[in-house]
Amino acid sequence: MLTLYYAPRTCALASHIALERAGADYRAERLDFAANQQRSPEYLELNPKGRVPTLVTPDGILTETPAILLYVAQTHPRADLAPLGDPFALAQVNAFASYLCSTVHVAHAHKARSSRWADDEAAQASMKAKVTRNMTDCFDLIEQRMLKGPWVIGERYTFADPYLYTIARWLEGDGVDVERFPKVADHRRRMAADPAVQRVLAAQGIAD
Amino acid sequence: MLTLYYAPRTCALASHIALERAGADYRAERLDFAANQQRSPEYLELNPKGRVPTLVTPDGILTETPAILLYVAQTHPRADLAPLGDPFALAQVNAFASYLCSTVHVAHAHKARSSRWADDEAAQASMKAKVTRNMTDCFDLIEQRMLKGPWVIGERYTFADPYLYTIARWLEGDGVDVERFPKVADHRRRMAADPAVQRVLAAQGIAD
Repeated sequence: MLTLYYAPRTCALASHIALERAGADYRAERLDFAANQQRSPEYLELNPKGRVPTLVTPDGILTETPAILLYVAQTHPRADLAPLGDPFALAQVNAFASYLCSTVHVAHAHKARSSRWADDEAAQASMKAKVTRNMTDCFDLIEQRMLKGPWVIGERYTFADPYLYTIARWLEGDGVDVERFPKVADHRRRMAADPAVQRVLAAQGIAD
Repeated sequence: MLTLYYAPRTCALASHIALERAGADYRAERLDFAANQQRSPEYLELNPKGRVPTLVTPDGILTETPAILLYVAQTHPRADLAPLGDPFALAQVNAFASYLCSTVHVAHAHKARSSRWADDEAAQASMKAKVTRNMTDCFDLIEQRMLKGPWVIGERYTFADPYLYTIARWLEGDGVDVERFPKVADHRRRMAADPAVQRVLAAQGIAD
């Protein structure tokens, strides 16, 4: 049995979808970020970063979306969530995931979490003011050079797809119209039509 | 034959060390960041992000350090750079790499690359002012909860080790005394004693 700790509207959605697609034996535990539950002593014992996702496995605790996604793929090979036997194709999937976590998620985080990188409010406001532009630049690159279509690496679905879907859902909140990126918008619709995604959204109590 | 594009003092050092440790058939191509060579049309054709590392392989082009490191490990299994047959142990290595790329490298980048996230100079100065504190916080976590020692995941060397070494080398420039973190300092000395690391530093023309 696996336990995924998540909060709605966070990047933990990607791992939640991967677990559901994999048919994994898991339960999802919701954290209340409004009550700062991710900073409680109990949770910090599990994940000292005070973030989500956290995946509790029989072997120990895992954090970081790209690592959790590959772990779910490797431990549920019949779900075929990654080209595990093809190092170059797998590296393309991992590179996409790495770009999302290190550049796109970070660009987004400068809106709600700007206090991580500067203490004064004027600087934080300045960071927030650039989020729309940076997210637009990131998705220009994804649209034009990275997303092969219909899925991220082409004809086959991989764990990069729920991760892209998760982060593309943030675009409107970041002031970016997803319809500006036809392939990304199409990808989001295709993902939203997946019954596994619909079950996860319902379980998290969020609408598409 | 593989070709690694790098610039000195960047995160590309991790991939360079992994290739050397693996005994890979590769050559290293240096980019001159001072001349902005990473933004040249020729290089942007290879890597539209305009960053390093880029690894040109017989199958195509790869970017993003965590993806390249796992690719080198998978394609050179005799070098034993990762616990490829143990999904949980591999996920621990990947989680460490993901933390370095999405949190620690990003904390560091707010010094020299603060213009990515805000346009006005006062905000950029404010970001730079917090880099020492953020890097200290990151390495406190690494020292106390993540680095098992002597290597990142314990008794065995993995590709997380050259990656940690690469980023720990930035501490002094970020105003942090590495000796504040005994396990990290010990790890850095152990890495620096590796002949493969010494060959790479010499090839890049940088001192330890």
